[in-house]
Formats: sequence, C-alpha cells, structure tokens
Amino acid sequence: MSDNEDYDRAGFRGSLTPGASPALIIVDPCEAYTNPECPLYAGVEAEVESMRQVRAAAVAAGIPVIITRVKHEEHGRDGGIFVRKVPALKWFREDSPFSGYIDGLAPGDGDIEIVKQYPSAFAGTSLMATLASLRIDTLIITGLSTSGCIRATATDSMQSGFIPIVVRDAVGDRLPEPHEANLFDIQAKIGEVVSFDEAVAIMNGTA
Amino acid sequence: MSDNEDYDRAGFRGSLTPGASPALIIVDPCEAYTNPECPLYAGVEAEVESMRQVRAAAVAAGIPVIITRVKHEEHGRDGGIFVRKVPALKWFREDSPFSGYIDGLAPGDGDIEIVKQYPSAFAGTSLMATLASLRIDTLIITGLSTSGCIRATATDSMQSGFIPIVVRDAVGDRLPEPHEANLFDIQAKIGEVVSFDEAVAIMNGTA
Amino acid sequence: MSDNEDYDRAGFRGSLTPGASPALIIVDPCEAYTNPECPLYAGVEAEVESMRQVRAAAVAAGIPVIITRVKHEEHGRDGGIFVRKVPALKWFREDSPFSGYIDGLAPGDGDIEIVKQYPSAFAGTSLMATLASLRIDTLIITGLSTSGCIRATATDSMQSGFIPIVVRDAVGDRLPEPHEANLFDIQAKIGEVVSFDEAVAIMNGTA
Amino acid sequence: MSDNEDYDRAGFRGSLTPGASPALIIVDPCEAYTNPECPLYAGVEAEVESMRQVRAAAVAAGIPVIITRVKHEEHGRDGGIFVRKVPALKWFREDSPFSGYIDGLAPGDGDIEIVKQYPSAFAGTSLMATLASLRIDTLIITGLSTSGCIRATATDSMQSGFIPIVVRDAVGDRLPEPHEANLFDIQAKIGEVVSFDEAVAIMNGTA
Repeated sequence: MSDNEDYDRAGFRGSLTPGASPALIIVDPCEAYTNPECPLYAGVEAEVESMRQVRAAAVAAGIPVIITRVKHEEHGRDGGIFVRKVPALKWFREDSPFSGYIDGLAPGDGDIEIVKQYPSAFAGTSLMATLASLRIDTLIITGLSTSGCIRATATDSMQSGFIPIVVRDAVGDRLPEPHEANLFDIQAKIGEVVSFDEAVAIMNGTA
Repeated sequence: MSDNEDYDRAGFRGSLTPGASPALIIVDPCEAYTNPECPLYAGVEAEVESMRQVRAAAVAAGIPVIITRVKHEEHGRDGGIFVRKVPALKWFREDSPFSGYIDGLAPGDGDIEIVKQYPSAFAGTSLMATLASLRIDTLIITGLSTSGCIRATATDSMQSGFIPIVVRDAVGDRLPEPHEANLFDIQAKIGEVVSFDEAVAIMNGTA
Repeated sequence: MSDNEDYDRAGFRGSLTPGASPALIIVDPCEAYTNPECPLYAGVEAEVESMRQVRAAAVAAGIPVIITRVKHEEHGRDGGIFVRKVPALKWFREDSPFSGYIDGLAPGDGDIEIVKQYPSAFAGTSLMATLASLRIDTLIITGLSTSGCIRATATDSMQSGFIPIVVRDAVGDRLPEPHEANLFDIQAKIGEVVSFDEAVAIMNGTA
Repeated sequence: MSDNEDYDRAGFRGSLTPGASPALIIVDPCEAYTNPECPLYAGVEAEVESMRQVRAAAVAAGIPVIITRVKHEEHGRDGGIFVRKVPALKWFREDSPFSGYIDGLAPGDGDIEIVKQYPSAFAGTSLMATLASLRIDTLIITGLSTSGCIRATATDSMQSGFIPIVVRDAVGDRLPEPHEANLFDIQAKIGEVVSFDEAVAIMNGTA
C-alpha cells in the first residue's frame, strides 16, 4: 500500500473546490535564493521562471497580485525567535547585497506588497484582513521556499478560511526531499497542489 | 554532503536556548489515534506512553500543563476548510466513539484545556494570550501528529515568540517518512527537537 | 460646531456600503445581564427583545447566525488579564447560576456557537476563519455590552476585513453614557450604526 | 451613585499589578496631529511633550521603546475597511506632507518600529511576537489618539496577555468627551490608567 493509499483510507486527502474569487501570492521572491554568491542560493531558476509566468497569467486574468518580502531591523528584535533559529535571515536585511527582488518579481503599482518578519505571509501581517476585505476566497500560492514559507503560508491560508492552491512548478526549495515531503503534507492535510495549467484555469475561472 | 551539512552551510539549524519559564503542551491526545477500530489509528503506543511520562515530569516540576482537543459542531461550519480537506476529522466530533481523551492524558483540575478547530494549537484559540499572561517563554511540545498538528503548533509557537521544544519520543505519526521529514524541518527552521531526558532537564531548569 | 461636524471636517465618519453576504452575531446573550439578582443586571429588556427580533429576521433571510458566550475554567488561567481586571466575569463561569443563555437567544442546531475568553468575538477564537470560509463580507452586530464586547467585536471586525454593522436598538449597556459614547466612536471610526429596519434591509439584500 | 461606584458594585474596575518587565509604546506620533495645516490637527502639544518625557524615562530605565506609524499603499487596498471609513487616513500616506514623525518621537537605532495598517498596534503586525520573544509582561501605552488607536491597542494588549498601562498625560485626542469616555472604559474593563509619575515608577521598577 502506498503512502497515498494509506492516507486515503484514513480519511485524509479530501478535495477542495477552488472559489470564484482567487488572488495570487508570490512569497519572498528574493535574490538571496537566485544569486549564486549567496549561501541561500537554491538553484530554482525554472521555478522562478514559472512564477513569472503565473504572475503574467494573474495580470491577464485581472486578479490581485500579492508579493511578500522579509524585513528585519538591524538589531533583529523584530525577528524574535526566527532570526535566532535561522542565521541566514541576515541575507534578507536591507544592508545585504542579496535582499532585492528577483528580476520580474518586484511588486508593481497595482500590486499589494506584504512586509513580513516570519515564514507565514499571514503571521504578523494584515494579509488576512486584506484578503477578506477584497472578498477573496482562494489563494494561489507560489514562491520560496517550499519547506519554509510556502508550507507556513499554505497552513495559515487554510486556518484562515482561504482555499490554498499551491502551484507545484512555481514553488522551489534547495533540496528535493524537503520539497517533495512538504508537497505531500500539503496535499494530504492542507490544500491542493496543482500544475501550472490548473492554476491558470482557476485564475481564469475555467477550472 | 548530508542534508544537515548543506543546511548548516546555508545558515539554517541555529540553536535556541530554552527559557526559564516553560509550559508543556500535549496536542490532541485523542482515542482516535489509539483505538485500532478507528481509521486514524496510528500505532503510536510508545509515543503515548512517553507523553504520559513527560506529563508526570511536568507536574513534578510544577510547570503548567496544556492539553488540546479538536471540536467541531455537527454542521461543521466552524471547521471551515479543514473539515473539507480532512474527512477523518469526523472522528473527533462529540458523536464519534473515538473522540475521548486517551487514558492518562485527559486534563485535570489544574490543567489548561484548549479546544481548537484547526491543526495549530494557536490558530483560533486563546493559547497565545494564556502563555503571555502566565509569562511563559518556552513551549515543550508533545502529542499527535507530527506532520499535522505538531508541525503547525511548533511553527506558530516560534511565530508567536515562544521557544518551541519538540520532544522526539513524545510525538508520533502514522507513517515514518512524514514523521522524520517534519522533525527535520522543525530542527532546521522552527525550533529544537530534543530527547525525553533533555525535555525533563528543561522543565526542571537543569538543562 | 457639533462633535459630528468637527469629525466630518477632520475626515472621519466615512460611509461603508454593506456587502451582499452578511452574517448576524449575537454577542454574549447571557442571563447575567437580565437576571435582577446578578450584580451585572443591566436593565436591557428592550434591547434583548430587539435581539430576538433581529435573530428571527436573520433566520427568515437565511443568513448565518453566530452566538457567543464567555467561558473560563474555574482556575481562571485561560482568562489571563481579563479575569483579573473584571471580577464580575465569575458570573459567566459554568458554576454560576447566571451563566445560561437568555431565553430565545441560545444557539440552535444550525447556528454557530463561539466560545470566547475575551471581549472581542474574534480574539482567541476561530470566528475570522469561519466568516472567511463562509465567504461572509458583512457582520451585523448585536448583543451585550456596548462599551465592552460590542466595541471590541466591531473593532476586530473592521480590522479583519468584515464590514461591521452595529444595530443601535439591539445592543445594550448598564449606563447610558458609555453606551452612547461607544456608539459615537463606532460610527466615527469603525463601522456603521444602524436602526433595526436598516439591519433587516441589509439582511434581506434590500438596503 | 457615581458611574464608578456603579461599576465597582457590578464587579468592574479590578486592579492590575504591573509586571517586572515593561516596554513603552508610542502609538502614531505623526505630524498629522500636530501640524495646524492638517485637518487632523488635534491641539495635543502638552500630551506630545509628555510623550517625549516618558520616552526619555524609558531610555533612562533601559526598557524597550516601540514606536508605530500608519502606512498604506497609494491604492489603499492594504487599508481594507479602515481607509473607507476614515478618509483622513490619507494624511498618513507617504505622499502626504504630514506623514513624518513628530520631532523627538521618531524611532532611533535601538528602537522597534511597527508599521501598521489598522488602529491597534497589534492588528496585522508582529508586535505580539516581539513582546513575547523579549519576555515583556507589561505595555506602557502612550500616543494618539485616545478614542482610536490607544483604545484599540490597550484592548489588544489585554487580550494578548500583556498588562496595559495607559499614561493619562501622554495620550491625546481632538475632543475632550471621547478622550475621557475612553479613559473611563479602559480603567473599567481593560487596563490601568496612570499618571506620568506612576508610569515612570513602573518603568523603574519602583511602583
């Protein structure tokens, strides 16, 4: 019996129907992940290109685009336990050479930028209020990295009442095992893991 | 290079020093996981016995004990997206034969019971306020299951400012791969994964 | 110049358009407020009758009805700072003779019951997730008391993205000054204070 | 019988003992309130001077200083319902001539700056996590304005487990009635309203 079969029998892996009012979120598209000189370099060029294409599809569909970045003050006290646990977060600070947005993924005038201190895009931010006030019901989730900020954001999206749709091709991580393990957990207990084409169909209302 | 070495070089896996004011949480010690007739049966007898021993050590150390359970109304509207994604949650409902506490793990008079609707013990509960008002700084995390409620609770503990200490022997899951994968992620990016003896030392202030 | 004129010139008192998907909340309809033997007795019989009528209108309109109650454990540690500040909260405990629901205002089978520890119906509860997952956009607010739980709930409704509509006739308080002062603040900065008839029109989609 | 006597008999107005680990917050010390050319000008020069003195006392006592500001994007979608209800919030936008910090109240290098979108300094921010991770137990609250952001921040401080101490002389509002009415409510149900000297004693651990 495969793990999926075991989970199906136990009563996990239910199917969520996307709503009619989605938004796209691109979590932490930061140069720290794409600049080979940064220790956080993750080799996720293909996933980043997919993020750009999902974004173009969201703009074409006329749905809101939300882009997040991590920001901590130099003293780091606004980073609480997170900056103690993950010293690499220094590469996201404003004094880091790698803290800029990846080309093609910076927020534009009409986009919503979320500045966050923790993995989840919902934790310590007004994202939930923004989604509710815009009457969004479904969150298309892309960005970096699968085992950190994507998992945390998908979990909070579900826990906050917004159907989480994770785009398999447009989320990435530095190692394949945590990437796959987290997509397994997300599909099992949190939200839907979909292909690029499925995500575009949801955004276009043709899913 | 092992995954741990790769993560160390990248700047993950920092070490958190436990605080002087810990509390113990036992997440969802529900018969659904231990009754072989329930589809959620997870074969976690050894981990459950470890939970009982950690609890006894917490009582001996005089630290607060928090015990959670999942509760949804029959109509399930208070379960939002979670009950749609995980049909197995019906086994936690009050009309289920498996919704009681596991022997030896029900809350007693002095304990704090948290009734929750979502995986994280912090999501949609007053746990954060309770911990802050009791001046707790460290959360010793045990219970079920590693890839669901434990992962979500540890993440929110970190995101809320309370050092998460996950007791390896006292958390369990139905399959070994998700169990180990989530402990790997927790140690890498969220909190500390410790042995039973280390947990007891933290509770006794001798770590 | 009246206070309202002063506020209008300063840029307060904007008008919010109710959405098409409202829910009704009845905050803490507890006998402690209506039993003359309880020190919390507030003399709000007319307002309570109005709550019953708003509820009937909600049922007729087919919109969700949410009813809250306060619950703290006997040790009170789940009540944090609130139970220290307001000793009268003991009358809401399960061992109090006044902790039941007011006649005609107990939750029925199809209703959503929110058990809370703090004034706001959103604080430490899954109400936000429930509203979002039901795609509610507007919260019709009734209950007790205006200067406490109503003010806090209206504030969090606004801060969470749900348009707060407070029904003037169906909220009450023990003294007229705090009642009026809080309705003034709510209309100025938080939400809309409406009459019974306006509330019914919003629920019926005819506002 | 006075309102205070009525409240005392009913069981409100309990007394909170400040903790040993306070932080100071200065809510929204923005030129919009002090520049007579801005419609939000509130005539609060004395209160602002008191804020400066409380801040100096906090620095002398070596306790953390948190300073907040409101920030919304030009499109305002991150302001949700709040910017619809309070058009005056445009004066806090970066393109406003009045959006700077009041002289002597801008955050310095060691301070913690909270950027917020809503009245409460806790709503949609990581303030709660910052306070918990710094093991703060008491929040000394100053700033503007009493009936809006101060009331909301004090309420959330209580609801989050941090004892709220509002400094009467160092909070201000444009009109006396809402100012006094909110201080009455805060003292009755939320936290402690204290004098400048009492606040300094709490910060110095000599209260």
